[in-house]
Amino acid sequence: MTVVCLDLEGVLVPEIWISFAQKTGLDELKRTTRDEPDYHKLMDYRISILKRENLKLSDIQETISSIRPLDGAKKFLDELRSLTQVIILSDTFEEFAKPLMRQLGWPTIFSNSLVVRDDVIEGIRMRQEDGKMNAVKALSSIGFRTFAAGDSYNDLKMIREADAGCLFRAPENILAENPDLKLCNDYSEFLSVIKENLK
Amino acid sequence: MTVVCLDLEGVLVPEIWISFAQKTGLDELKRTTRDEPDYHKLMDYRISILKRENLKLSDIQETISSIRPLDGAKKFLDELRSLTQVIILSDTFEEFAKPLMRQLGWPTIFSNSLVVRDDVIEGIRMRQEDGKMNAVKALSSIGFRTFAAGDSYNDLKMIREADAGCLFRAPENILAENPDLKLCNDYSEFLSVIKENLK
Repeated sequence: MTVVCLDLEGVLVPEIWISFAQKTGLDELKRTTRDEPDYHKLMDYRISILKRENLKLSDIQETISSIRPLDGAKKFLDELRSLTQVIILSDTFEEFAKPLMRQLGWPTIFSNSLVVRDDVIEGIRMRQEDGKMNAVKALSSIGFRTFAAGDSYNDLKMIREADAGCLFRAPENILAENPDLKLCNDYSEFLSVIKENLK
Repeated sequence: MTVVCLDLEGVLVPEIWISFAQKTGLDELKRTTRDEPDYHKLMDYRISILKRENLKLSDIQETISSIRPLDGAKKFLDELRSLTQVIILSDTFEEFAKPLMRQLGWPTIFSNSLVVRDDVIEGIRMRQEDGKMNAVKALSSIGFRTFAAGDSYNDLKMIREADAGCLFRAPENILAENPDLKLCNDYSEFLSVIKENLK
């Protein structure tokens, strides 16, 4: 019995912060976990920009409401969910994820949450540190075989912790630093690789 | 952040073995986890009857294909999944659960599997002992608040392990032995009780 653990942004939906950067014209917000390995540093940086620009949670949520899953993502996920158990492991926040989960047919997601006061994002509340990797460990501890996939720095530990895994559409820096990890670039290949690993 | 852990049979779908007992006319197969606390004993008993009657996995799957979720279960589950994370914790087998999960919109389910040879059910492969309770423990260990609900003997440990929980449409013997556990009998009340416990 296998649980497939998938990253969300870049794998099933576009990067939320990049969409928001495009919407607001704030290029500084284009920095993501693909560029910055330290998530707390990245979020402090993002929150400081939001404060400077007087941007609120509702502004980000408005952008998210216009985001659609990546082409083919829903079909891929539907087929995968008919074959095995799938849990999305994401460092994003439940306040951001919900409209995307609705479009994907409410897959299970383990994410984090925001500290919000009067619509102002004050900080983040991580479910735990290394949440993705520890979720894989916990699933393994209750008798599951695990397969993990993602595209960013914050996915590497979970991929290496899992019984099997791969990268999906990872950028050059991640590929260069992890030449031993298999890379998939389209959903058909991705599904084939996962199927080979189902037991 | 809360994960709601739900039993499957009796909570979202009818008891599979009771449906099969009705279909085959074998009243001996009406014994369930509501009556027998020892799951291995119960499954050995069921498998011995299947062998005696020359009944195969495909015969049970044919019955399951005609089972529909309980009235109101899909609507309840859809609403619950829009509010929080839900994982079905069931002692049933993936070979049985799939057609039911399809009808429920592919919620995540942690179950067991069967040992099958030439369509004959030879035995069971438990993901682990006390799988429901240990899944609640594992979810708790990765930073989730947990709420658990079910109707049978095999649900009691997970309900007591969770931060909060209740019984749903439990039979008299379970109620008599667990007077301290709250009982819900309809989905509207069930949803209200869960909502009160979301954090």
